[in-house]
Amino acid sequence: MSDLPAKIHLVEEGPREGFQIEKGPIPTARKIELIDALSDTGLTRIQIVSFVNPKRVPGMADAEAVVAGFTPRPGVSYAGLWLNDQGFDRARATGRLDMRGAITIGASDTFLRRNQNRSIAEQIASQRDMVKRYVELGVPVYRGGMMAAFGCNYEGDIPVPRVVELVGTIVDIAAERNIRLDYVSLADTMGWATPLSIKRVVGAVRSKFPDLALSLHLHDTRGLGLANAFAGLEMGVAHFDAAVAGLGGCPFAANAGAAGNVCTEDLVVMCDEMGVETGVDLDRLVECARLAEDIVGHPLPGCVMKGGTLAKLRAAKAARA
Amino acid sequence: MSDLPAKIHLVEEGPREGFQIEKGPIPTARKIELIDALSDTGLTRIQIVSFVNPKRVPGMADAEAVVAGFTPRPGVSYAGLWLNDQGFDRARATGRLDMRGAITIGASDTFLRRNQNRSIAEQIASQRDMVKRYVELGVPVYRGGMMAAFGCNYEGDIPVPRVVELVGTIVDIAAERNIRLDYVSLADTMGWATPLSIKRVVGAVRSKFPDLALSLHLHDTRGLGLANAFAGLEMGVAHFDAAVAGLGGCPFAANAGAAGNVCTEDLVVMCDEMGVETGVDLDRLVECARLAEDIVGHPLPGCVMKGGTLAKLRAAKAARA
Repeated sequence: MSDLPAKIHLVEEGPREGFQIEKGPIPTARKIELIDALSDTGLTRIQIVSFVNPKRVPGMADAEAVVAGFTPRPGVSYAGLWLNDQGFDRARATGRLDMRGAITIGASDTFLRRNQNRSIAEQIASQRDMVKRYVELGVPVYRGGMMAAFGCNYEGDIPVPRVVELVGTIVDIAAERNIRLDYVSLADTMGWATPLSIKRVVGAVRSKFPDLALSLHLHDTRGLGLANAFAGLEMGVAHFDAAVAGLGGCPFAANAGAAGNVCTEDLVVMCDEMGVETGVDLDRLVECARLAEDIVGHPLPGCVMKGGTLAKLRAAKAARA
Repeated sequence: MSDLPAKIHLVEEGPREGFQIEKGPIPTARKIELIDALSDTGLTRIQIVSFVNPKRVPGMADAEAVVAGFTPRPGVSYAGLWLNDQGFDRARATGRLDMRGAITIGASDTFLRRNQNRSIAEQIASQRDMVKRYVELGVPVYRGGMMAAFGCNYEGDIPVPRVVELVGTIVDIAAERNIRLDYVSLADTMGWATPLSIKRVVGAVRSKFPDLALSLHLHDTRGLGLANAFAGLEMGVAHFDAAVAGLGGCPFAANAGAAGNVCTEDLVVMCDEMGVETGVDLDRLVECARLAEDIVGHPLPGCVMKGGTLAKLRAAKAARA
């Protein structure tokens, strides 16, 4: 019955996704508190900050202070996000992050212009330049990324052949430098994907690039996040980004009420209950989700922290017996 | 790629599921306002009240007044829920409801005792008695229902063979009276299902009863509601219960923070975007979801009413072009 992967790899993006979009200023110490708590959950990769223009994303103005303040745990890699050379230089200067490069392009020209002030062609050129620099500096390049792979609030539906072609561009940029990518991430940046389009796009990319591992970065804008993750699992996708408590959302995605990323602990429950290993301690992660709510000061979309885990209900039943 | 049904049938249960669990008293007129708004969405069956003990479910004490006050729309059938003879008599006495009987049993003895003060065996006997009465009164019996088919907060995991056996009991009770059921509903009353267990249970029931149509009644307690609905669609399930805005939850399910039913408008978006027909006008339904939030006076879990529809974004794009 099940063709699901035995095991998946999660990248926790809550601190970066969440704190970049919150309106109120969040004290640096509280951001660090969440990162340190997440370090104790079994998660092995946490994206903790982004190095972007503080005028455009004020919530990340304290990125250096956050990086200086957290307590690294052995076996966990801590990542930052950057979109250009300046961001990369800031990340590198901290000396405390796992510096690995990505080749990231977007399937929507309009979104790229708004998000990064570049056309797709300019973005491709800039990625080639950045890879050149990574290679010169000995920074490994490990993944590709495709933003707005399933649709765009500005451009609407994104043709599948365009996604396949642009994945090809990412693969080419890597191949030019003899880089073998761990995986390419398909991002549903603005919540356009459905389980069916996940299957279509993943299937189309895989037909063209059968040996390329894929990752999914899903937003829960219309409530389909976990359904889309399940469709990905059914296609054998074994890499997922997620955000504790469902933190996040994109500041440049043109719908203010949009929900954030697919919720890490809800995804973990789904995997746990289907026998798909995540390596994550669910109870500890649920505590992190509650901490995240406390930090942002308003309810967050995660369900398990409200509904409770099935493991607890099973344990209560066993205790009664 | 897609084996999804071309079309599904939705039963809207928001007014009944939602108003039975809300703490504050909700004015009868506002309940009627929501029912009347739902009547204009294209939904063809709406469960509007339950006839239960007002001491146990105070939010339904005004069931008769609600039924007396709504404006029926041609082509829409309005249902009430009852659990025993008294409830049935109250529903029938209104003279305004689509009186069709169901054969409902539960897969968890403990839950049945808490919810209806009966064992499974007593419940089976009472259903036989009620069917006898339906037949005598000329009330058609159209569906079966199985509560807690995927797990129970008191009993934990429910063995699949028990579900199959109890579906057999429902089919037998119907056959004894030469009744052909439209479908049997499998209810995830306490949010234990995963997409995989949906596939397992639906698959097991279907192997034994290949000609029996199935329906899913899903709760979103742990965020898996739509993923479970998608798994059902993949199995060809074409009948779903849902609640506008994600209203609801079960007052006797032992976790106060539990989310309600799978959200109708989020399910409709998923179907619309995958080419599965629902017959529902999404924009009108989203307005109903906002109305429901206004009526209960607190945020409800539905996502599309916050994130917006893709159809609107496509239209905005077309208008710019």
